[in-house]
Amino acid sequence: MSLSLYDISVPVFINAFGNLAEILKKGEAYADEKGLSHKDLLQARLIDDMYPLIAQVQRASDTARFAAVRVAGIENLPMADGEATFAELQDRIERTVAFLKGIDPSAMAGREEAEVVLTTRSGSTTFTGKSYILGFAVPNFYFHVTTAYAILRHKGVPVGKMDYIGRSK
Amino acid sequence: MSLSLYDISVPVFINAFGNLAEILKKGEAYADEKGLSHKDLLQARLIDDMYPLIAQVQRASDTARFAAVRVAGIENLPMADGEATFAELQDRIERTVAFLKGIDPSAMAGREEAEVVLTTRSGSTTFTGKSYILGFAVPNFYFHVTTAYAILRHKGVPVGKMDYIGRSK
Repeated sequence: MSLSLYDISVPVFINAFGNLAEILKKGEAYADEKGLSHKDLLQARLIDDMYPLIAQVQRASDTARFAAVRVAGIENLPMADGEATFAELQDRIERTVAFLKGIDPSAMAGREEAEVVLTTRSGSTTFTGKSYILGFAVPNFYFHVTTAYAILRHKGVPVGKMDYIGRSK
Repeated sequence: MSLSLYDISVPVFINAFGNLAEILKKGEAYADEKGLSHKDLLQARLIDDMYPLIAQVQRASDTARFAAVRVAGIENLPMADGEATFAELQDRIERTVAFLKGIDPSAMAGREEAEVVLTTRSGSTTFTGKSYILGFAVPNFYFHVTTAYAILRHKGVPVGKMDYIGRSK
Protein backbone atom coordinates (compact mmCIF):
# COMPACT_ATOMS: atom_id res chain seq x y z
CA MET A 1 0.00 0.00 0.00
CA SER A 2 1.13 3.51 -0.68
CA LEU A 3 -0.35 6.97 -0.78
CA SER A 4 -1.49 9.06 -3.70
CA LEU A 5 -1.56 12.82 -4.16
CA TYR A 6 -5.33 12.54 -3.77
CA ASP A 7 -5.04 10.65 -0.45
CA ILE A 8 -2.84 13.31 1.12
CA SER A 9 -4.93 16.29 0.03
CA VAL A 10 -8.63 16.02 -0.85
CA PRO A 11 -9.92 13.79 2.01
CA VAL A 12 -7.66 15.65 4.43
CA PHE A 13 -9.16 18.97 3.37
CA ILE A 14 -12.71 17.62 3.61
CA ASN A 15 -12.04 16.44 7.17
CA ALA A 16 -10.48 19.76 8.18
CA PHE A 17 -13.40 21.74 6.76
CA GLY A 18 -15.73 19.69 8.95
CA ASN A 19 -13.70 20.72 11.97
CA LEU A 20 -13.49 24.34 10.82
CA ALA A 21 -17.27 24.48 10.40
CA GLU A 22 -17.69 23.38 14.03
CA ILE A 23 -15.09 25.91 15.22
CA LEU A 24 -16.96 28.69 13.40
CA LYS A 25 -20.23 27.56 15.02
CA LYS A 26 -18.56 27.90 18.42
CA GLY A 27 -17.40 31.37 17.42
CA GLU A 28 -20.91 32.39 16.42
CA ALA A 29 -22.39 30.95 19.62
CA TYR A 30 -19.78 32.77 21.70
CA ALA A 31 -20.59 36.08 20.00
CA ASP A 32 -24.29 35.56 20.75
CA GLU A 33 -23.60 34.60 24.34
CA LYS A 34 -21.36 37.62 24.96
CA GLY A 35 -23.42 40.06 22.92
CA LEU A 36 -20.57 40.65 20.47
CA SER A 37 -21.24 41.79 16.93
CA HIS A 38 -20.97 38.98 14.39
CA LYS A 39 -19.47 41.43 11.96
CA ASP A 40 -16.73 42.46 14.39
CA LEU A 41 -15.77 38.84 15.00
CA LEU A 42 -15.82 37.99 11.29
CA GLN A 43 -13.60 40.99 10.62
CA ALA A 44 -11.24 40.30 13.54
CA ARG A 45 -7.57 39.85 12.71
CA LEU A 46 -4.28 39.36 14.55
CA ILE A 47 -2.75 42.58 13.26
CA ASP A 48 -3.96 45.36 10.96
CA ASP A 49 -2.34 44.18 7.74
CA MET A 50 -3.30 40.50 8.06
CA TYR A 51 -6.42 38.86 6.66
CA PRO A 52 -9.47 38.84 8.97
CA LEU A 53 -11.32 35.67 9.97
CA ILE A 54 -13.67 35.73 6.99
CA ALA A 55 -10.80 35.91 4.51
CA GLN A 56 -8.88 33.11 6.24
CA VAL A 57 -11.82 30.82 5.53
CA GLN A 58 -12.06 32.05 1.94
CA ARG A 59 -8.35 31.40 1.37
CA ALA A 60 -8.60 27.92 2.88
CA SER A 61 -11.42 27.25 0.41
CA ASP A 62 -9.37 28.55 -2.53
CA THR A 63 -6.24 26.64 -1.51
CA ALA A 64 -8.13 23.36 -1.24
CA ARG A 65 -9.98 23.76 -4.57
CA PHE A 66 -6.90 24.88 -6.46
CA ALA A 67 -4.83 22.00 -5.12
CA ALA A 68 -7.10 19.61 -7.00
CA VAL A 69 -7.65 21.92 -9.97
CA ARG A 70 -3.96 22.50 -10.61
CA VAL A 71 -2.86 18.90 -10.12
CA ALA A 72 -5.75 17.23 -11.94
CA GLY A 73 -6.14 19.88 -14.62
CA ILE A 74 -9.87 20.08 -13.98
CA GLU A 75 -12.01 23.17 -14.13
CA ASN A 76 -12.22 25.32 -11.01
CA LEU A 77 -15.55 26.21 -9.47
CA PRO A 78 -15.11 29.96 -8.98
CA MET A 79 -16.33 31.40 -5.70
CA ALA A 80 -16.78 35.13 -5.24
CA ASP A 81 -15.60 36.45 -1.88
CA GLY A 82 -18.91 37.99 -0.93
CA GLU A 83 -19.44 36.25 2.41
CA ALA A 84 -20.41 38.60 5.24
CA THR A 85 -22.15 36.35 7.78
CA PHE A 86 -21.43 33.11 9.60
CA ALA A 87 -24.21 31.44 7.60
CA GLU A 88 -22.57 32.51 4.35
CA LEU A 89 -19.20 31.21 5.51
CA GLN A 90 -20.80 27.87 6.36
CA ASP A 91 -22.33 27.83 2.91
CA ARG A 92 -18.91 28.54 1.36
CA ILE A 93 -17.48 25.60 3.29
CA GLU A 94 -20.36 23.34 2.18
CA ARG A 95 -19.91 24.28 -1.47
CA THR A 96 -16.14 23.74 -1.18
CA VAL A 97 -16.62 20.31 0.39
CA ALA A 98 -19.17 19.37 -2.28
CA PHE A 99 -16.66 20.35 -4.97
CA LEU A 100 -13.92 18.32 -3.29
CA LYS A 101 -16.21 15.30 -2.89
CA GLY A 102 -16.91 15.42 -6.61
CA ILE A 103 -13.25 15.00 -7.57
CA ASP A 104 -12.43 11.64 -9.09
CA PRO A 105 -9.24 10.34 -7.41
CA SER A 106 -8.08 9.02 -10.78
CA ALA A 107 -7.88 12.59 -12.10
CA MET A 108 -4.96 13.23 -9.73
CA ALA A 109 -3.31 9.83 -10.25
CA GLY A 110 0.21 9.66 -11.62
CA ARG A 111 0.70 13.42 -11.45
CA GLU A 112 3.53 13.35 -8.89
CA GLU A 113 6.14 14.54 -11.40
CA ALA A 114 3.81 16.60 -13.64
CA GLU A 115 4.60 20.30 -13.93
CA VAL A 116 2.41 22.62 -11.89
CA VAL A 117 2.90 26.34 -12.46
CA LEU A 118 1.68 28.72 -9.80
CA THR A 119 1.30 32.28 -11.02
CA THR A 120 0.80 35.11 -8.56
CA ARG A 121 1.36 38.85 -8.60
CA SER A 122 4.97 38.28 -7.59
CA GLY A 123 5.71 35.92 -10.47
CA SER A 124 5.54 32.27 -11.43
CA THR A 125 6.81 29.29 -9.48
CA THR A 126 7.15 25.89 -11.09
CA PHE A 127 6.46 22.86 -8.95
CA THR A 128 5.94 19.19 -9.55
CA GLY A 129 2.59 17.76 -8.48
CA LYS A 130 4.32 16.30 -5.44
CA SER A 131 6.21 19.45 -4.42
CA TYR A 132 3.13 21.57 -5.02
CA ILE A 133 0.90 19.47 -2.76
CA LEU A 134 3.50 18.84 -0.05
CA GLY A 135 5.38 22.14 -0.19
CA PHE A 136 2.61 24.59 -0.97
CA ALA A 137 -1.00 23.43 -0.90
CA VAL A 138 -1.02 21.47 2.36
CA PRO A 139 1.03 23.95 4.45
CA ASN A 140 -0.91 26.89 2.97
CA PHE A 141 -4.21 25.20 3.73
CA TYR A 142 -3.31 24.53 7.36
CA PHE A 143 -1.94 28.05 7.64
CA HIS A 144 -5.36 29.55 6.92
CA VAL A 145 -7.34 27.04 9.00
CA THR A 146 -5.00 27.50 11.97
CA THR A 147 -5.09 31.28 11.63
CA ALA A 148 -8.90 31.24 11.58
CA TYR A 149 -8.74 29.20 14.80
CA ALA A 150 -6.09 31.56 16.25
CA ILE A 151 -8.22 34.65 15.58
CA LEU A 152 -11.21 33.11 17.37
CA ARG A 153 -8.99 31.92 20.22
CA HIS A 154 -7.43 35.39 20.47
CA LYS A 155 -10.92 36.86 20.77
CA GLY A 156 -11.80 34.54 23.62
CA VAL A 157 -13.83 31.84 21.88
CA PRO A 158 -13.55 28.65 23.97
CA VAL A 159 -12.15 26.32 21.33
CA GLY A 160 -9.36 23.82 21.96
CA LYS A 161 -6.85 21.81 19.99
CA MET A 162 -9.23 18.88 19.66
CA ASP A 163 -11.73 21.09 17.84
CA TYR A 164 -8.99 21.70 15.28
CA ILE A 165 -7.73 18.11 15.05
CA GLY A 166 -11.21 16.63 15.12
CA ARG A 167 -12.27 13.36 16.62
CA SER A 168 -13.26 11.23 13.64
CA LYS A 169 -10.42 8.91 12.74
CA MET B 1 5.45 6.48 -8.44
CA SER B 2 3.63 6.91 -5.19
CA LEU B 3 4.21 8.46 -1.82
CA SER B 4 5.25 6.87 1.46
CA LEU B 5 4.47 7.88 5.03
CA TYR B 6 8.08 9.05 5.24
CA ASP B 7 7.74 11.26 2.12
CA ILE B 8 4.72 13.10 3.50
CA SER B 9 6.17 13.74 6.96
CA VAL B 10 9.91 13.75 7.68
CA PRO B 11 11.24 15.81 4.72
CA VAL B 12 8.22 18.11 5.01
CA PHE B 13 9.01 18.75 8.68
CA ILE B 14 12.70 19.34 7.94
CA ASN B 15 11.78 21.93 5.32
CA ALA B 16 9.31 23.68 7.62
CA PHE B 17 11.84 23.85 10.45
CA GLY B 18 14.23 25.63 8.08
CA ASN B 19 11.54 28.22 7.44
CA LEU B 20 10.65 28.46 11.13
CA ALA B 21 14.30 29.06 12.04
CA GLU B 22 14.38 32.03 9.64
CA ILE B 23 11.09 33.37 10.99
CA LEU B 24 12.48 33.23 14.53
CA LYS B 25 15.62 35.07 13.38
CA LYS B 26 13.40 37.83 12.02
CA GLY B 27 11.60 37.93 15.36
CA GLU B 28 14.86 38.26 17.25
CA ALA B 29 16.12 40.97 14.89
CA TYR B 30 12.84 42.87 15.24
CA ALA B 31 13.07 42.75 19.04
CA ASP B 32 16.62 44.14 18.87
CA GLU B 33 15.62 46.84 16.42
CA LYS B 34 12.63 47.95 18.51
CA GLY B 35 14.35 47.51 21.87
CA LEU B 36 11.85 44.84 22.94
CA SER B 37 12.79 42.25 25.53
CA HIS B 38 13.60 38.87 24.00
CA LYS B 39 11.97 37.22 26.97
CA ASP B 40 8.72 39.11 26.43
CA LEU B 41 8.60 38.09 22.79
CA LEU B 42 9.44 34.46 23.57
CA GLN B 43 6.68 34.42 26.17
CA ALA B 44 4.14 36.21 23.97
CA ARG B 45 0.88 34.39 23.31
CA LEU B 46 -2.43 35.06 21.60
CA ILE B 47 -4.48 34.69 24.76
CA ASP B 48 -3.65 33.96 28.39
CA ASP B 49 -4.40 30.25 28.38
CA MET B 50 -2.63 29.39 25.11
CA TYR B 51 1.00 28.32 24.74
CA PRO B 52 3.54 31.13 24.26
CA LEU B 53 5.92 31.32 21.30
CA ILE B 54 8.63 29.25 22.94
CA ALA B 55 6.24 26.38 23.66
CA GLN B 56 4.81 26.44 20.14
CA VAL B 57 8.30 25.68 18.85
CA GLN B 58 8.81 22.96 21.47
CA ARG B 59 5.50 21.32 20.54
CA ALA B 60 6.36 21.45 16.82
CA SER B 61 9.62 19.68 17.69
CA ASP B 62 7.79 17.03 19.73
CA THR B 63 5.13 16.46 17.10
CA ALA B 64 7.70 15.97 14.35
CA ARG B 65 9.90 13.58 16.37
CA PHE B 66 6.98 11.54 17.66
CA ALA B 67 5.50 11.18 14.18
CA ALA B 68 8.55 9.17 13.18
CA VAL B 69 8.99 7.49 16.56
CA ARG B 70 5.42 6.22 16.75
CA VAL B 71 5.16 5.07 13.14
CA ALA B 72 8.63 3.53 12.85
CA GLY B 73 8.78 2.20 16.41
CA ILE B 74 12.21 3.75 16.91
CA GLU B 75 13.52 5.27 20.10
CA ASN B 76 12.69 8.92 20.77
CA LEU B 77 15.42 11.45 21.48
CA PRO B 78 13.98 13.14 24.58
CA MET B 79 14.27 16.92 24.73
CA ALA B 80 13.72 18.82 27.94
CA ASP B 81 11.72 22.02 27.55
CA GLY B 82 14.37 24.24 29.09
CA GLU B 83 14.75 26.74 26.24
CA ALA B 84 14.65 30.39 27.35
CA THR B 85 16.45 32.26 24.55
CA PHE B 86 16.26 32.53 20.79
CA ALA B 87 19.65 30.80 20.54
CA GLU B 88 18.36 27.88 22.59
CA LEU B 89 15.26 27.61 20.39
CA GLN B 90 17.47 27.55 17.30
CA ASP B 91 19.50 24.80 18.94
CA ARG B 92 16.30 22.83 19.66
CA ILE B 93 15.36 23.14 15.99
CA GLU B 94 18.83 22.02 14.90
CA ARG B 95 18.75 18.97 17.16
CA THR B 96 15.24 18.12 15.95
CA VAL B 97 16.29 18.39 12.31
CA ALA B 98 19.39 16.26 12.97
CA PHE B 99 17.17 13.60 14.55
CA LEU B 100 14.79 13.70 11.59
CA LYS B 101 17.65 13.50 9.09
CA GLY B 102 18.88 10.38 10.84
CA ILE B 103 15.65 8.47 10.28
CA ASP B 104 15.92 5.69 7.76
CA PRO B 105 12.93 5.93 5.39
CA SER B 106 12.68 2.14 5.39
CA ALA B 107 11.82 2.22 9.12
CA MET B 108 8.51 3.86 8.23
CA ALA B 109 7.84 1.74 5.14
CA GLY B 110 4.74 -0.42 4.97
CA ARG B 111 3.34 1.00 8.20
CA GLU B 112 0.23 2.58 6.62
CA GLU B 113 -2.15 0.13 8.31
CA ALA B 114 -0.08 -0.55 11.45
CA GLU B 115 -1.71 0.35 14.77
CA VAL B 116 -0.50 3.58 16.36
CA VAL B 117 -1.79 4.31 19.85
CA LEU B 118 -1.64 7.87 21.09
CA THR B 119 -1.96 8.18 24.85
CA THR B 120 -2.57 11.54 26.44
CA ARG B 121 -4.03 12.76 29.71
CA SER B 122 -7.50 12.57 28.19
CA GLY B 123 -7.15 8.92 27.16
CA SER B 124 -5.95 6.77 24.31
CA THR B 125 -6.74 7.10 20.63
CA THR B 126 -5.96 4.32 18.20
CA PHE B 127 -4.90 5.29 14.71
CA THR B 128 -3.40 3.53 11.75
CA GLY B 129 -0.03 4.79 10.57
CA LYS B 130 -1.81 6.56 7.73
CA SER B 131 -4.54 8.17 9.82
CA TYR B 132 -2.01 9.18 12.48
CA ILE B 133 0.27 10.98 10.03
CA LEU B 134 -2.51 12.54 7.92
CA GLY B 135 -5.09 13.14 10.64
CA PHE B 136 -2.92 14.04 13.61
CA ALA B 137 0.81 14.55 13.12
CA VAL B 138 0.78 16.77 10.02
CA PRO B 139 -2.11 19.06 11.07
CA ASN B 140 -0.75 19.28 14.61
CA PHE B 141 2.71 20.15 13.32
CA TYR B 142 1.42 22.93 11.09
CA PHE B 143 -0.80 24.14 13.90
CA HIS B 144 2.22 24.88 16.10
CA VAL B 145 4.39 26.31 13.32
CA THR B 146 1.57 28.58 12.13
CA THR B 147 0.78 29.67 15.67
CA ALA B 148 4.45 30.55 16.27
CA TYR B 149 4.26 32.66 13.10
CA ALA B 150 0.93 34.16 14.18
CA ILE B 151 2.31 35.22 17.57
CA LEU B 152 5.26 37.00 15.94
CA ARG B 153 2.97 38.59 13.35
CA HIS B 154 0.58 39.69 16.11
CA LYS B 155 3.52 41.37 17.87
CA GLY B 156 4.46 43.29 14.74
CA VAL B 157 7.35 41.23 13.36
CA PRO B 158 7.53 41.86 9.59
CA VAL B 159 7.18 38.29 8.36
CA GLY B 160 5.03 37.25 5.42
CA LYS B 161 3.44 34.13 4.04
CA MET B 162 6.49 33.35 1.92
CA ASP B 163 8.62 33.14 5.04
CA TYR B 164 6.29 30.39 6.20
CA ILE B 165 5.99 28.56 2.87
CA GLY B 166 9.67 28.95 2.05
CA ARG B 167 11.22 29.42 -1.32
CA SER B 168 13.20 26.25 -1.91
CA LYS B 169 11.19 23.96 -4.14
